[in-house]
Order: sequence, then C-alpha cells, then structure tokens
Amino acid sequence: MQGENKYMMRAIELARLAAAAGEIPVGAVLVDAASGDIVAEAHNLTERDHDATAHAEVLVLRAAGAALQAARLPDCDLYVTLEPCPMCAAAISFARIRRLYFGAYDPKSGGVENAAPFYAQPTCHHRPDVYGGLHEQDCAQLMKDFFKDKR
Amino acid sequence: MQGENKYMMRAIELARLAAAAGEIPVGAVLVDAASGDIVAEAHNLTERDHDATAHAEVLVLRAAGAALQAARLPDCDLYVTLEPCPMCAAAISFARIRRLYFGAYDPKSGGVENAAPFYAQPTCHHRPDVYGGLHEQDCAQLMKDFFKDKR
Repeated sequence: MQGENKYMMRAIELARLAAAAGEIPVGAVLVDAASGDIVAEAHNLTERDHDATAHAEVLVLRAAGAALQAARLPDCDLYVTLEPCPMCAAAISFARIRRLYFGAYDPKSGGVENAAPFYAQPTCHHRPDVYGGLHEQDCAQLMKDFFKDKR
Repeated sequence: MQGENKYMMRAIELARLAAAAGEIPVGAVLVDAASGDIVAEAHNLTERDHDATAHAEVLVLRAAGAALQAARLPDCDLYVTLEPCPMCAAAISFARIRRLYFGAYDPKSGGVENAAPFYAQPTCHHRPDVYGGLHEQDCAQLMKDFFKDKR
C-alpha cells in the first residue's frame, strides 16, 4: 500500500470544503516540483462563480499562471482528487504540466483514460448544434497570416 | 454562397485585434438567441494573462456567466473563428450552449470534428506523466457521498 501523499491529502481537504459549500467535491493542488512548495490550490467553484469553466484544475492553472507570470508551467506537478474531464485534460496539456496525479477514476466523464471526439462521446452530456465553415476562408486566412508572420 | 453573418464578422474583427496584440487570432462572440444581443465577446488572451485557459471561447463563457449569473447558458449561441479545441469544446458543452458556429476547421488541434482520448491524440502536443489511483478510495468516496446526499 502506498504511503500518505501530503499533496493529495490537501486536495482531499479542499474537495471536502467544496462539498460543504455545495460545489462538486473536486480539489486540486499545484506543486513546484523542485522545491515542493504549493504554488496554487483550489476546489470547484462553478456554482459560486456562475462559471462552467471553474473546475479546480482550471482554477489552479489560472492562479499559478498569474503568480508565476507564465502560461506554461513545465516545472509543476498537479494533484487532483478526480480524473480530469476533457476540458481540464486539455488545459493541463496546454500548461505543459510535468506530472498529473489523480485520485478517483471517472468512467462517466473523465478525459484522461476516457473520452474521444468530444461531442460524439457518451461522456458528453450536451452537444450544441454545430455549424462549421461559416466564413471559413476569412477565418482560415487569419490563422495563416498570423503564423506566416511568426516564421 | 451564404450571406454575411454579422456575428462572425465581429468575431473576425476580434481575431484581428488579437493578432495585432501578438495573441493567437481567434475571436468569439456569444449571442442571446432570442434578442440577438451580444452577451459577451473576446479574443484569445493567453499571452497577456499568462493563462493557458484564456482561449476566446472560455473567456466569453466566463464573462457571460458572470453577466447573467448563470453557469449554464442554454439560450445563447456562440460564434468563433476557429474550430474549438477539446478544452473549449468541453466548456461549451458544460455551459449548455445552444448553437456553435465556427469558421475555420482545425485539423491539427480541433476538438469538435477531431480529437479522441485526449492525451493519446496527435492533436495533443504535451502529455504529462499520469499517475491515476492515488488515494483512490478516499477520493472516490467524496464523490459518492456528495451525490448520495443530493438524491
């Protein structure tokens, strides 16, 4: 049996605070891998903030980015009580997090061990009507011009 | 050929502002479907905000949630210049957006027509080391207790 992990214990504490506040009980702690210091911690706040994106993982990435003045956090490890959803899995990748530790698996809505073309999955609980290709040429040109200028 | 869509034209304008500011040129506009009013608009701000989650779509959902005091926005339609990434695709679903209109397809990183178990995809450009099942029982119990109490 693995020993107690202090970061996950803290994440669990945060998740309990979330539950007490009527939020989905997920807690997350972001740790500087070199020093072992906690850079940011959070629990879900979707209800309080009226913000569908206010998952614990997104909140710690946002707070840590502001604290360290860097959108990319390659020297940080993330501890979270639940398998991240596809939104958070992607955000964790964008932030270049080194290690992801999670507690419970989420077969219903997880985006790490589960999920696929997002709106087509059983883990997706709402699919908007989708209309791709509106003003496609103009929109594509923007991207081409931008990255052309960058090279 | 389809006529000019004023919301997408505005999104394109926002994307141009993003490019001028050195941000990835993606613009998004969230519209109240009944009134046709623009509820929120944004362009990417990942550079300025040092926030890997500050994509245009996440920013409009966040702003609209705060403005309307609701995390779910089922009466709103979203116009965005680029096919949303998996993070944004999931956020759009969580917010229960009615219709998603997008401009350019993004075969490299899109999460609407593309993508699958996120970290396993060619569209994923960074996969953190993943350690699932840390304090799994405690973490799973939190979720069970929370939803048990809700029923």
